[in-house]
Amino acid sequence: MSHNSFGHLFRVTSWGESHGPSIGGVVDGCPPGLPLTEADIQPFLDRRRPGQSRFTTQRQEADAVRILSGTYEGLTTGTPISLLIENTDQRSRDYGAIADRYRPGHADVTYELKYGLRDPRGGGRSSARETAIRVAAGAVARLVLGAAVQVRGALVQIGPHAIDLARWDWGEVTRNPFFCPDPGTVPVWEEYLDRVRKNGSSAGAIIALQADGVPPGLGAPLYGKLDADLAGALMGINAVKGVEIGAGFAAASLSGEENADPMSMQDGHLVFGSNQAGGVLGGISTGQPITARFAVKPTSSILTPVASVTRSGEAASVATKGRHDPCVGIRAVPVGEAMLACVLADHLLRHRGQTGR
Amino acid sequence: MSHNSFGHLFRVTSWGESHGPSIGGVVDGCPPGLPLTEADIQPFLDRRRPGQSRFTTQRQEADAVRILSGTYEGLTTGTPISLLIENTDQRSRDYGAIADRYRPGHADVTYELKYGLRDPRGGGRSSARETAIRVAAGAVARLVLGAAVQVRGALVQIGPHAIDLARWDWGEVTRNPFFCPDPGTVPVWEEYLDRVRKNGSSAGAIIALQADGVPPGLGAPLYGKLDADLAGALMGINAVKGVEIGAGFAAASLSGEENADPMSMQDGHLVFGSNQAGGVLGGISTGQPITARFAVKPTSSILTPVASVTRSGEAASVATKGRHDPCVGIRAVPVGEAMLACVLADHLLRHRGQTGR
Amino acid sequence: MSHNSFGHLFRVTSWGESHGPSIGGVVDGCPPGLPLTEADIQPFLDRRRPGQSRFTTQRQEADAVRILSGTYEGLTTGTPISLLIENTDQRSRDYGAIADRYRPGHADVTYELKYGLRDPRGGGRSSARETAIRVAAGAVARLVLGAAVQVRGALVQIGPHAIDLARWDWGEVTRNPFFCPDPGTVPVWEEYLDRVRKNGSSAGAIIALQADGVPPGLGAPLYGKLDADLAGALMGINAVKGVEIGAGFAAASLSGEENADPMSMQDGHLVFGSNQAGGVLGGISTGQPITARFAVKPTSSILTPVASVTRSGEAASVATKGRHDPCVGIRAVPVGEAMLACVLADHLLRHRGQTGR
Amino acid sequence: MSHNSFGHLFRVTSWGESHGPSIGGVVDGCPPGLPLTEADIQPFLDRRRPGQSRFTTQRQEADAVRILSGTYEGLTTGTPISLLIENTDQRSRDYGAIADRYRPGHADVTYELKYGLRDPRGGGRSSARETAIRVAAGAVARLVLGAAVQVRGALVQIGPHAIDLARWDWGEVTRNPFFCPDPGTVPVWEEYLDRVRKNGSSAGAIIALQADGVPPGLGAPLYGKLDADLAGALMGINAVKGVEIGAGFAAASLSGEENADPMSMQDGHLVFGSNQAGGVLGGISTGQPITARFAVKPTSSILTPVASVTRSGEAASVATKGRHDPCVGIRAVPVGEAMLACVLADHLLRHRGQTGR
Repeated sequence: MSHNSFGHLFRVTSWGESHGPSIGGVVDGCPPGLPLTEADIQPFLDRRRPGQSRFTTQRQEADAVRILSGTYEGLTTGTPISLLIENTDQRSRDYGAIADRYRPGHADVTYELKYGLRDPRGGGRSSARETAIRVAAGAVARLVLGAAVQVRGALVQIGPHAIDLARWDWGEVTRNPFFCPDPGTVPVWEEYLDRVRKNGSSAGAIIALQADGVPPGLGAPLYGKLDADLAGALMGINAVKGVEIGAGFAAASLSGEENADPMSMQDGHLVFGSNQAGGVLGGISTGQPITARFAVKPTSSILTPVASVTRSGEAASVATKGRHDPCVGIRAVPVGEAMLACVLADHLLRHRGQTGR
Repeated sequence: MSHNSFGHLFRVTSWGESHGPSIGGVVDGCPPGLPLTEADIQPFLDRRRPGQSRFTTQRQEADAVRILSGTYEGLTTGTPISLLIENTDQRSRDYGAIADRYRPGHADVTYELKYGLRDPRGGGRSSARETAIRVAAGAVARLVLGAAVQVRGALVQIGPHAIDLARWDWGEVTRNPFFCPDPGTVPVWEEYLDRVRKNGSSAGAIIALQADGVPPGLGAPLYGKLDADLAGALMGINAVKGVEIGAGFAAASLSGEENADPMSMQDGHLVFGSNQAGGVLGGISTGQPITARFAVKPTSSILTPVASVTRSGEAASVATKGRHDPCVGIRAVPVGEAMLACVLADHLLRHRGQTGR
Repeated sequence: MSHNSFGHLFRVTSWGESHGPSIGGVVDGCPPGLPLTEADIQPFLDRRRPGQSRFTTQRQEADAVRILSGTYEGLTTGTPISLLIENTDQRSRDYGAIADRYRPGHADVTYELKYGLRDPRGGGRSSARETAIRVAAGAVARLVLGAAVQVRGALVQIGPHAIDLARWDWGEVTRNPFFCPDPGTVPVWEEYLDRVRKNGSSAGAIIALQADGVPPGLGAPLYGKLDADLAGALMGINAVKGVEIGAGFAAASLSGEENADPMSMQDGHLVFGSNQAGGVLGGISTGQPITARFAVKPTSSILTPVASVTRSGEAASVATKGRHDPCVGIRAVPVGEAMLACVLADHLLRHRGQTGR
Repeated sequence: MSHNSFGHLFRVTSWGESHGPSIGGVVDGCPPGLPLTEADIQPFLDRRRPGQSRFTTQRQEADAVRILSGTYEGLTTGTPISLLIENTDQRSRDYGAIADRYRPGHADVTYELKYGLRDPRGGGRSSARETAIRVAAGAVARLVLGAAVQVRGALVQIGPHAIDLARWDWGEVTRNPFFCPDPGTVPVWEEYLDRVRKNGSSAGAIIALQADGVPPGLGAPLYGKLDADLAGALMGINAVKGVEIGAGFAAASLSGEENADPMSMQDGHLVFGSNQAGGVLGGISTGQPITARFAVKPTSSILTPVASVTRSGEAASVATKGRHDPCVGIRAVPVGEAMLACVLADHLLRHRGQTGR
């Protein structure tokens, strides 16, 4: 058991605070012999990096990852892979004002209720900065899954503005600063978020994930279900408040007939006529795409003052002036992909361990 | 690691198939000295038991639990508590017809894809029958939490019919066969489900959970978050496709101002002006009620034939004639409560272990 | 984490007290498709069963195991295997006298110091009776290892009387009541133990274990070492006070030259000129036989009165009159074999999971 | 589960190879509010550091530890503590000759059998260099245990030369380069090891550990026994081949009367007349000193050529010329202490979690 590790055979341990010298993680259990250098990880970190458009925080972090162990001559050795990212843009002064008061919607108050003290600089351990390590681990997980498995994500809603699913184009995702698969929605979000930013407010979002090429049989009854592990992994991302697999909450309104994914054989392969299940039945992958969605609350750091209290129990009003994402949901896309990749890699190894397949 | 265990310090391992001689579980890590007999568990099993109204399966199971270890003279000893429930109503003939074909929406096909074989009798390990053990474990978890913590659940939607939240009355929940907190909705559901049943169809549902009196500080960064563990636990219940904490998916549409729960001090205690967070910030409990919701898909066993395949790969049509719940979401209410209680009990012990509080 | 489980991919959870209705265990993670019935387990339980000679306790237990889950039509399904053994010879009156005082050398006092209460009947959870479940789990582990792996044990010392290693004959082990591989030592032990028994005293013992046919590569750096896991597993058997791998404590007196096992190739296979390492280098199996030894202290239940205290803190003298093994080390042989088999099975699956071999 | 982590509530994950840029570890689960800076750790690392006498390797490593996370203003925050030590004296050329052949007694061959490749520089992951992280983690564990618990170790045998237990003086341990508690033995060992070193040979050793002030109640039945966890932890140290608790292997030769530790009350406290048990009964601490011993094999790196094979399967002869400890057992003393401290800290938190004491 560990509070800061996840996975079992493919296991990630992370450490570090927003304003310490560095953050890092250890990926243990990676199969040996996989080609791995920093160049395999950096592109994923770059996708998550802040400051790439006016819609994310202007904090500048190089987020350059170093591999400190676990590889030799460019191949994984099967021993733990230590990943380290320097913190290069820590302006502790930004946070001095909030050291003695709790920011609403943040973990300031709960860390202190739990531990009796906290590192107030940039949210300390609860900072979204930690998600860089998840993304780095996810890049390693992708290597474990191999080229036949493709893990992708996209933003499908910002604030009240959802995309038009009929216009979905995966190719579009890399062509706008929102990871938006619907070109028609991009200008709507631009205008909306500019207004939100101007008002010192923030917006929530919904992210969709999909993994294609996942072999059937991953997952396990009953407390190692693939979808349950995925739900835990996604809900554990900062600011996430909801998770769906396949049809999700909409399944509640479907009839049994609408919900049943019919099966047939085509060219000797099992195929399904629909995918309400999201690629998972009884906690085990079917071979269809794994589909999931998760909801991110609006950034808690806003300019509008909100009632709060100080550490000594006096009334206070908190308005957060630092450099913040108006919509943290945008940068949650690569984080969600990474968590999905890690869960799949872990279950791939677990399945192979038990069944030999 | 284990595929059939959950929790860490308060840890539950379950075993058994729908049509084996019995099902059971082991609760390990329970604190010593708690008064515990079968009478503390049975009422919760009775709430989940089938056959109590025309809206649940007519299968008759006594679901009488026996404690085989871990107590002495009516007190827990700190050693593992073995729980056993005999299977008394196994009509294997009901299932003979489906041994060689895969029921759509069921785990038949994935168990076989994973393991190469399966126990087809009543769904084997994937049967919802296993949830009885979760409920039994949840009853023990409630003792660990103590009387100050109250864990409750209610059904808030069947098919497309949601309750009116303004009419919420916890007292009503025990007065109708749906665990419905809104008396005005009960006749709507009765009529709707009678029609569904008559048509041989099925309906989905949404369940709401609430835990009051939870002390602040439970949960842990970053991969032991209270809400993440809860999401995994709820998504792991049979047929669940979505989980929300607090405002859930609706949070995506809120502004930062709407989403921020303001804090103040009242009589020396920290209070919040709202609870969009669902009682959890940064993965750690705030002291507010823990609130969660989860969606259950419509029962996959329906009379309407759905296209499927046989084990040997031939086209087949499956209509399930056995005794099934038209809406498995109803009996998921006590199961959801149990999972919430288990997650809280585990985190209570984990928090005490690390911090001594 | 769990206090009553061991192993990771091949994981055993045990429960039960000496004088409860039954004891049992759950074997989780077993590969699917292995032929398994009670008949595969019972012979190993019979080897451990008391009352088979005048040198073990005269308590009579059928130790008949039942499989309650995890198999279908004689094959493992990959789901948890529940094992149950009824307690049929609980004479609680035997233990009434010691309910209020602590037996020296027993866990009576420590259970009460830890938990504040204990089940005094027959030692409760700390009874050696629990080792029956280890033996049953070990029988399943042997199936996982397959016929190419042979796990054997023998008694090599009782009290001060060690066997002559030069006379080792594995065939002899099944021909005497001591699991003794040296026929010349059998009469020595008979005479010695008869005298010990007559005096109401007890004797310690040393057991040697060997596993042949273990594939190379099992185990893992650095905290999943095969020999470290084995040492933990053997030290966890009741009354064990020492564990050795390969040359063990004698290695301390060897020179580097004496200790180095030379390597060469024979017929394309790697062979070693000696096995001081006990088949493990760097925590990973070499392909040589795994060899280990463990020491069992003399049975703590003796007729000679020993100074002790009562639960209320008064001086007391304890002489144990019940039916006890004069040398618990004898019946520890099948238990040690079982633990070795379980550790190997777990590492076989773990190795396969990570490396795919 | 993880191959490179140990402990449960107090959990240590280590990473790094002998000749990578650095080695490190993560201590997770540490209670909050403990004063901790590098100065609390460094003295223990200095005790283990090589090159401090002619009896250890002349490799020069500063072994300066840095804390990268988990503390704020000199106090632990309850979040993961990242520890990093730079590798400053990596002479890879020393090891070039052995990259293509397996050193007898080393893990070269098993790493390659397991993973299909290995990092040959200095033994890679299997290097004793990793034990620095254990020592650093042990220093943190000591803070968790508090000043009332004292964890100490001493060397009691080198090669065939054991100390005279009657002359034991803990104060002497810090006054000689061997951690020897018997001043009379120091010159014997000096002369012996000088001869061993001159011959290019090596020697084994036995280390004794003792923890005073350990509260009763730590440990758990049946697979979380304090002595079993300790045995696993000690056997997991590089080159260890045997572990004993209390009387250890000598217990096999004792009579029941000799082995029983009598109990009595003195000034309201439970006391034992002897400590054959080594402070543990039924896997749970009694309140007496925890005593353990472990045996270290002679250093495998010796000048005398030993038969071996190359990676391509040809016969080879290996003599290791690098800078090596003639007796690795010496520097194993602080490592053993650290492992004992870590096991105790973990069980302290586990006990508190379950029982609230």
